[in-house]
Amino acid sequence: MNYRVVAAQFGMLCILLSVIMLTMASIGLAIEWYQLDPVDSAAIVALYVTGIFGLLAGLALRYFGRRGSRFLGRREALLLVSTSWIGGALLGALPYWMWAYLHFPAGAAHPFLSFVSCYFESMSGLTTTGATVLTDIEGLPPSLLLWRALTHWLGGLGIVVLFVAVLPGLGVGGKRLFQIESPGPAPEGLQPHVRETARWLWYIYLGLTLLEIAALWVLTPMDGFEAVCHTFATLATGGFSTMNAGVGAYHHTPAVDVIVIIFMVLAGVNFGLYYRLCRGKLSNVFQDVELRVYLAVLVVAAALVCGAVALSPNPIVLTTGEQVPSTISESVRQGIFTTVSIQTTTGFCTSDFDLWPVLAKAVLIGLMFVGGSSGSTAGGIKIIRVWVAFKVLWMQVEQVFRPHVVRPVRVGRASVEPELRLGAVAYLLIIALLFAGGTITIMLLEHAGGECECDLATAASACVATLCNVGPGMAQVGAVENYGWFTPPTKLLMCLLMALGRLEVFAIIVLFTRRFWRNN
Amino acid sequence: MNYRVVAAQFGMLCILLSVIMLTMASIGLAIEWYQLDPVDSAAIVALYVTGIFGLLAGLALRYFGRRGSRFLGRREALLLVSTSWIGGALLGALPYWMWAYLHFPAGAAHPFLSFVSCYFESMSGLTTTGATVLTDIEGLPPSLLLWRALTHWLGGLGIVVLFVAVLPGLGVGGKRLFQIESPGPAPEGLQPHVRETARWLWYIYLGLTLLEIAALWVLTPMDGFEAVCHTFATLATGGFSTMNAGVGAYHHTPAVDVIVIIFMVLAGVNFGLYYRLCRGKLSNVFQDVELRVYLAVLVVAAALVCGAVALSPNPIVLTTGEQVPSTISESVRQGIFTTVSIQTTTGFCTSDFDLWPVLAKAVLIGLMFVGGSSGSTAGGIKIIRVWVAFKVLWMQVEQVFRPHVVRPVRVGRASVEPELRLGAVAYLLIIALLFAGGTITIMLLEHAGGECECDLATAASACVATLCNVGPGMAQVGAVENYGWFTPPTKLLMCLLMALGRLEVFAIIVLFTRRFWRNN
Repeated sequence: MNYRVVAAQFGMLCILLSVIMLTMASIGLAIEWYQLDPVDSAAIVALYVTGIFGLLAGLALRYFGRRGSRFLGRREALLLVSTSWIGGALLGALPYWMWAYLHFPAGAAHPFLSFVSCYFESMSGLTTTGATVLTDIEGLPPSLLLWRALTHWLGGLGIVVLFVAVLPGLGVGGKRLFQIESPGPAPEGLQPHVRETARWLWYIYLGLTLLEIAALWVLTPMDGFEAVCHTFATLATGGFSTMNAGVGAYHHTPAVDVIVIIFMVLAGVNFGLYYRLCRGKLSNVFQDVELRVYLAVLVVAAALVCGAVALSPNPIVLTTGEQVPSTISESVRQGIFTTVSIQTTTGFCTSDFDLWPVLAKAVLIGLMFVGGSSGSTAGGIKIIRVWVAFKVLWMQVEQVFRPHVVRPVRVGRASVEPELRLGAVAYLLIIALLFAGGTITIMLLEHAGGECECDLATAASACVATLCNVGPGMAQVGAVENYGWFTPPTKLLMCLLMALGRLEVFAIIVLFTRRFWRNN
Repeated sequence: MNYRVVAAQFGMLCILLSVIMLTMASIGLAIEWYQLDPVDSAAIVALYVTGIFGLLAGLALRYFGRRGSRFLGRREALLLVSTSWIGGALLGALPYWMWAYLHFPAGAAHPFLSFVSCYFESMSGLTTTGATVLTDIEGLPPSLLLWRALTHWLGGLGIVVLFVAVLPGLGVGGKRLFQIESPGPAPEGLQPHVRETARWLWYIYLGLTLLEIAALWVLTPMDGFEAVCHTFATLATGGFSTMNAGVGAYHHTPAVDVIVIIFMVLAGVNFGLYYRLCRGKLSNVFQDVELRVYLAVLVVAAALVCGAVALSPNPIVLTTGEQVPSTISESVRQGIFTTVSIQTTTGFCTSDFDLWPVLAKAVLIGLMFVGGSSGSTAGGIKIIRVWVAFKVLWMQVEQVFRPHVVRPVRVGRASVEPELRLGAVAYLLIIALLFAGGTITIMLLEHAGGECECDLATAASACVATLCNVGPGMAQVGAVENYGWFTPPTKLLMCLLMALGRLEVFAIIVLFTRRFWRNN
C-alpha cells in the first residue's frame, strides 16, 4: 500500500475544505461585522480556527506525501475514497463542536457539545444523508447553517468530481475513483475521457445549482441565504434545511414545493445523461432504461402514496404541527413531495408521514431501499441494480421449469454480462444483510442500558434511513423527530452505515479485510 | 401440461391420506368404543367421513388420469409437488373442521369452526411448521391430536419419500421430484438410484421414529400416545405438541428435553448422510462441510443464547407460566433447547423466549432464517446455501481490490459451479424479498380494519416463522401465543408462505408465471 500518495491526496482535500471554511468565515465577518452577536462571532471564530488547523494538517500531509510514487493503484484509490469521507467528516465536524464549546457555558445541554454528535452531523452532511441530531436548527448561526448545507453540496457530487476534475495529481487514478463512484452498467461514453467528463459534470452540477437558487429566490419568498442552503440540500439529495419544520415551513407557498420537487427529480437522474444531453444526443437520453424505470417507479409510487393518504380519514399533520384535512389536492401535494423526497433519498419533509396509512409507509420504506439512478447524487441501491437483479431472479424462476432455455439478461439493447448479473444480485443481498445486521446492532446498543424507547420500527427505519442516505425514518426517527437521542456508540454505527451506503459498500468493507492491507 | 398424470398421482396421495384417516378412526374406535364421549365420537365420525370423501375424490382423480401418457415432465413434477401440499392440506383440514362442526353448538367460538383456521393448522402440519391457531390444545380429542402430529410426520420427509418409494407410477418422475426437494449441492451418491435411496431414507426415518418413541416412552413419564405425537413432531422438525404448554409441560423431567434435543439435532442433519453411514462410509460423513458448519453454528449460537439468558437479571418464564430464576444450569438448559428447537425450525417451546434479552432474540431470529441442513426435514434457507452465498459475497469483496485474482468457491474439496453460486445468492435474496413482502402484506391486511395489535415485530416474526417453517415467532406470535387471532386473509397468506418455504420457493412461484402454463 502506497500511503504517501493517499496522504498527499487527502491533504489536498483538507486544504480545499479549509480554504472553503476560511472563505465562509471571512464572508460572514464581512457581512455581519457591524452587528456581530455572540452566537455569530463564536461560529466565525470556530470556522477560522478549524480552517487554519485543517490547512496546517493538509500541508503536513502533503509534506509527508511529497516523495514516493504518484501512482494511485486500485487499493490506494479505495483507501483514498474511504479516508476522504471518514476523515473529511472529522474535519467538517470541528466547526460545530468548537462553536458549541465557545458559545455555551459549562453544563449546557446542546447536542453539539458532544463531538460524536458533531461527527454524526458532519458525516450526515458529506454523505448527503440529511439526518440531524438537532432539535432547534434555527438556533444555529447562519455561517454554520451554510457550512452544514455546503457539506451536502460538496459531498453530493462534489468531492469526487472536484477530485477528478480539479486536482491534477491523479492521472490514471481518476479513472479508478470514478469507477468506484458510479458502478452498475455505466453510460457508455462516460469512461474514456474521465477528466474531461468530470469537468462537464462539474459545470452541469454548478449550472443546476445556480438555476435552482435563482428559481427559489425569484419565484418564492425565500431570501438568498435560504435559497442557497435549500438548493445545496436539494441537488445533493441531502435534506438539511435551515428551518426547524424543514421545507414544511414554506407550506403557504406551494411554489417552493414545486421547485424543490423538480430539482429533486433532476438530482436523482444519472448526471451522465445531462452530459449526453449537452452533446446533443437527445433521443439517446430518452431511450435510457434507467431513466424510464426511475420515472415509472416515481409515478406509480406517488400514485399509491397519494391515494392512500387521500383515502385515509385522518388529517395530514404538517411538520409545523399544523393539521390540514386530507383533501385530494392536499394529499396529492404532500404525497408527491414526500414520494420524490424519499425516493431521491433527499429526505426533505413537509408533513409527518409517520402518521400515514400502512400502505403509504410501506411504499416509502421500499423507495428508501431502491433510491435514485446510478451516477446521480441519490443514495439507495440504485434503480439499475434493482432492475438487473429482478431480471436475474426472474430468469432463475424460469430456469426451474425450462432449464435448457438460456436467455440473455438485457438492459435496453445491451446484454448484461454474467459478472455484472451476479454483482447486482450480490449487492442487493449485501444491502439486505447490512440492513439486518445494522438493525440488530442498533437494538443491541440501545438496549444495552436496559429498557429504552428504541423499538423495532425505529431501529429498522433508522438503519435504512442512514444506510440508504435518506435521513428521516419512521417512529422515533420520523419526519418530526431527530437522531440526537441515540447513544454515542449507536451514532458512530450510523456514521459507518452512512459511509457504507454513500460509497456503495465496498470501499468501506474492504477496510475490514486483512488481504486489503497486505501487499502480496 | 399433462394434467392427467398430475391428477392420477395426486389422486394416489388422496387415497393414501384417506386410508390413513380411516385407519386412525378405526383404531380410535377399537380402543375407545367402551368409553366414547361426545368429543371423541365427533372426531371419529369426522375422520371416517373425511376418509371416505378423500377416497372417493382420489378414485375420481385416478379415473380422470387413467389414460394419457404416464410421462412426468419437469413442469408436471412441479405442479404435482405444489398440488400435493396445497391440495393435501385441504384434505387434511377437513377432519378438524368437520369435528368442530359436529361437536360445537351453533354460535360457539372454537377456532376450528372457521375453515381457514383449519386449513392453516393443516398446512402448518404438512409443511412441518408447527404454528397453531389453537389456545386449548388439550381440549382436542386424541384422534385429532394424533392426526395433527401425523400431518407433521407425513409432511416432514414423508410425503415425498412415500411418493418416490411407495408409489410405483412415477418412474422417471421420481428423480425430478427428488431434485426439487433437495437442491443445493446434493450429496454425491444420492441421485443415481433414486428409488433405492428413497426406500433407504424411509427406513432411516422410520428407524429414528421408533427409536425416539421408545426412548420417550421408556425413559420419561410420557405415555405411549404422547411419545408418539411428540416423536412425529420432533423428527419432522414440526413442533405440534399435545400439551398447551408444549414441551415445557414436562419441565420436571429433564430427560424429555435431552431426548428431544438429541432427535431435533438428528432431524436437522442431511438424511443422505445417514444413508452413507448405513453404507459404512464413516469418515466420509464427518468430513461433510455442511454437517460441520451446522454443528458449529448450533454450538456458537447456543453459547450466545445461554450466556445472554444467564447474564440477564430477569427470571426465566416457562411456557407453563411458572417463573424460575436464571441460574446457570437453568439458562443452559433453556438456551440449548430453544436454540436447537429454533435452528432446526422445530419450534418446540419450553420457555417464553420473547422475554429474553435482545441478543438472544436476535440470534434466534437469525437462526430461523438459516435453518438446518439441506436434505433434512428442517426448514429455513439451509446451511449449505448460506455457506456458499457468504463465500461468494466474500469473493465479490476481494475482487474489488484484486480484480484479476479469480479463486474458485469451494465447499470441502468440491468447487461450486458458477450456476450454483448465482443460485445460492439469488435464493437468499428471494427469501429476503419474500420476508419483506410478506411482512408488509401482513401489516396491510391486519391494519385494513383500522387500529390493531399487530406491530412490526409481530408481523416480521410471524412472516419468518411461517416462511422458514419454524412455528413460534416473537411478540404477539411468541412462544406462549398463537396464530388464531389473525384475520382469515392473513392466515391464507401465511399458508402460502409456509408452502413457499417448505417447497423451497420455486415450485410455488412458478405457478404465478404465465410461461409455466404455456406449452410452447
